[in-house]
Amino acid sequence: MEKIIDSLIQKIRVCKNPSVIGLDTDIEYLASDHQLDSLEKKCNAILDYNKQMIDVLCDIVPAVKVQIAYYEVFGASGMDVFAKTLQYAKQKGLYTIADAKRGDIGATAKMYAKAFLEIGAPFECDFLTVNGYLGTDGLQPFVDICKKNNKGLFVLVKTSNPSGAEIQNLVANKSTIYQIMADITKDLGKDQLGKYGYSNIGAVVGCTHPTQAEQMRQEYPAMFMLVPGYGAQGGSAQDAKLCFDAKGDGAIVNSSRGILCAYKNPKYQGLGIFEAARSAALDMQKDLA
Amino acid sequence: MEKIIDSLIQKIRVCKNPSVIGLDTDIEYLASDHQLDSLEKKCNAILDYNKQMIDVLCDIVPAVKVQIAYYEVFGASGMDVFAKTLQYAKQKGLYTIADAKRGDIGATAKMYAKAFLEIGAPFECDFLTVNGYLGTDGLQPFVDICKKNNKGLFVLVKTSNPSGAEIQNLVANKSTIYQIMADITKDLGKDQLGKYGYSNIGAVVGCTHPTQAEQMRQEYPAMFMLVPGYGAQGGSAQDAKLCFDAKGDGAIVNSSRGILCAYKNPKYQGLGIFEAARSAALDMQKDLA
Repeated sequence: MEKIIDSLIQKIRVCKNPSVIGLDTDIEYLASDHQLDSLEKKCNAILDYNKQMIDVLCDIVPAVKVQIAYYEVFGASGMDVFAKTLQYAKQKGLYTIADAKRGDIGATAKMYAKAFLEIGAPFECDFLTVNGYLGTDGLQPFVDICKKNNKGLFVLVKTSNPSGAEIQNLVANKSTIYQIMADITKDLGKDQLGKYGYSNIGAVVGCTHPTQAEQMRQEYPAMFMLVPGYGAQGGSAQDAKLCFDAKGDGAIVNSSRGILCAYKNPKYQGLGIFEAARSAALDMQKDLA
Repeated sequence: MEKIIDSLIQKIRVCKNPSVIGLDTDIEYLASDHQLDSLEKKCNAILDYNKQMIDVLCDIVPAVKVQIAYYEVFGASGMDVFAKTLQYAKQKGLYTIADAKRGDIGATAKMYAKAFLEIGAPFECDFLTVNGYLGTDGLQPFVDICKKNNKGLFVLVKTSNPSGAEIQNLVANKSTIYQIMADITKDLGKDQLGKYGYSNIGAVVGCTHPTQAEQMRQEYPAMFMLVPGYGAQGGSAQDAKLCFDAKGDGAIVNSSRGILCAYKNPKYQGLGIFEAARSAALDMQKDLA
């Protein structure tokens, strides 16, 4: 069977677009005409918004990243919207990344892995983000289920936020912590390599630290990167491009607020939420080209 | 208002029991007579089990820790059981720790914080476990909401699993990563100290590495510790005791499988699930005394 990372790379090539839209759907973004005065109305409105966003973007982007925190805040009902958003994106032919940054000891990690990466799981996705602070035995259950079900991971290696450096840039035994995390990730994914040379077990590497991103691209040629930090967080297309290999593969760049809130951007004045989002997604595609 | 950490310490003193029962309710533990052939039946059975477990333990233990992964695996319906378990424990006078190990960049962390630590939140708890790999700006929203609502955190510092050392024991600038995480935690919690000298912002410190736990107790006198690793994971009462101060305060020791699966232990032969759990919890209390 074709590795999921190969399928994603092919889809990116077909779309000519190495970007992923982050559905960090804050209810503030909805600008609804209706009064959202109950939990049910709020959840329905968010699901409806997500579906419309997927509809206007599914022919131009290869994937969506759904940030689970924006759904957990609405409790079990929100989690149902999260599940349905992933399902709808999949129906529309998009690859799905559940951005949940889960991580725990082995027995517990196995339960998280089953929740997101089992076939038919309630929150089934193609790729899951995970946190490796607990080391290999906390990551292994995720890796094992990926191998069984042809799913992928993005391990948090070098995050895009300013304080990320506090732990990640510390130097131990001549390596930074983020390089050591990258080494762990590389080892875990070495037997899940696809035909383009990338592993199903990838990494989150922000483009807000371009020098480090460039170095990571060179040191870890088999590591597919999910790249946050572009746009609202300050990373430029030039910065993001450093995460790609010479063929233009090897990374997918996320934008969340830049797309969802494009309607607030003077550049897209006069456009509705979804038209503005589509225009911004097309501009991002050109920007990264 | 009395700090939540002071309330917890008082409750521990009244119960004479510095232990917390982990409701990592694996459906395998239920040994149900009924056929659990639908999601609804499974979720109802888990909630019923949790309520019975809380009923038999609420007069002897001060707190429960509910491990969210065991509920996420059942999707939105499982999350509803998670919420109801927290609510029921609270009704029964127990302090509640949501073991979710959440962590993300600031904007997202704020959403997680609202999901667990806002008053009336869907998953409202007294304390939440969080992961600080993203550094201070990822933890700050959790700390801020704790200050506003008198809630508490346990930041993952030194975990109980064997691979925890891979990242956490690395040495940078003469400090281990777990000490640096403890320093971040200490700084974040320094203005939320209670009358017993402990902060609402505490840490997870496993007792499977007793020398390090003892050293942490001395170096961080204001850091209340949630202590995993006792029992099934190999930590002894002697190991766990190193996390306490001279007055016997400063820590709460978790046991999950050791209590929930006590009925499988030859020591409690002939007892039902809940009787065995109560006996095991009383034995744990004696063991830690």
